[in-house]
Amino acid sequence: MIEKIHHVGIAVHDLDESLKFYRDTLNLHVHAREEIKDQGVRAALLTIGQSEIELLEPLNADSPIAKFIERKGEGLHHICFQTPDVDAELEAIKQKDIAVIDQKPRKGLAGMICFLHPKASRGVLVELATP
Amino acid sequence: MIEKIHHVGIAVHDLDESLKFYRDTLNLHVHAREEIKDQGVRAALLTIGQSEIELLEPLNADSPIAKFIERKGEGLHHICFQTPDVDAELEAIKQKDIAVIDQKPRKGLAGMICFLHPKASRGVLVELATP
Repeated sequence: MIEKIHHVGIAVHDLDESLKFYRDTLNLHVHAREEIKDQGVRAALLTIGQSEIELLEPLNADSPIAKFIERKGEGLHHICFQTPDVDAELEAIKQKDIAVIDQKPRKGLAGMICFLHPKASRGVLVELATP
Repeated sequence: MIEKIHHVGIAVHDLDESLKFYRDTLNLHVHAREEIKDQGVRAALLTIGQSEIELLEPLNADSPIAKFIERKGEGLHHICFQTPDVDAELEAIKQKDIAVIDQKPRKGLAGMICFLHPKASRGVLVELATP
């Protein structure tokens, strides 16, 4: 069961530059900033209703976010759907022969998370999360 | 004031194909289908928490959605933020010298809407809406 949009991830060159729009123009509140070294990203999380905007800046050229920006430019990167039981959801999805990136949920910024393969969802990178 | 994510728009080649994932795999409910001839799109709206997923299929090759898919492939197209007063929000944004596509709100699928220019928001096409 999908409960809501947990967050929308946006790939940006420069976190502080992008905050000029999302924080200073739209007046969204930054409730967390994180550096996730093993994923090669620096993130800022902004509250919007019951959801979040996740701004993602690459820490280095090998980061998947750097490669995304190189290929497609800055912009919408992924969408994360919240579910009360990411293990059960992922199992149900795999049984429908939907392509996944993560075979098992793992720890991420949004709690226990997994990514589906964009080819399953018409080019959209979909994340599932149980906070 | 931004209240919530009203919807996330996804550009797809084929609405019915994409519903196999969003409706049949994720079990999201389709609460409306619309054809908007002057924008050259066929849309399906799916409920997700207090937000929506808007699947957009081009009706012809001149549609902005067709051009988007040609340039970037299927995938996340825009994000729409709900505000109680889109006129006031747009005026405030213009006074901050933020680039916009629509100088005035107009009628759209989500109510009275306007689009900001992606260069204002780090490559993201942002829509504002007052339902």
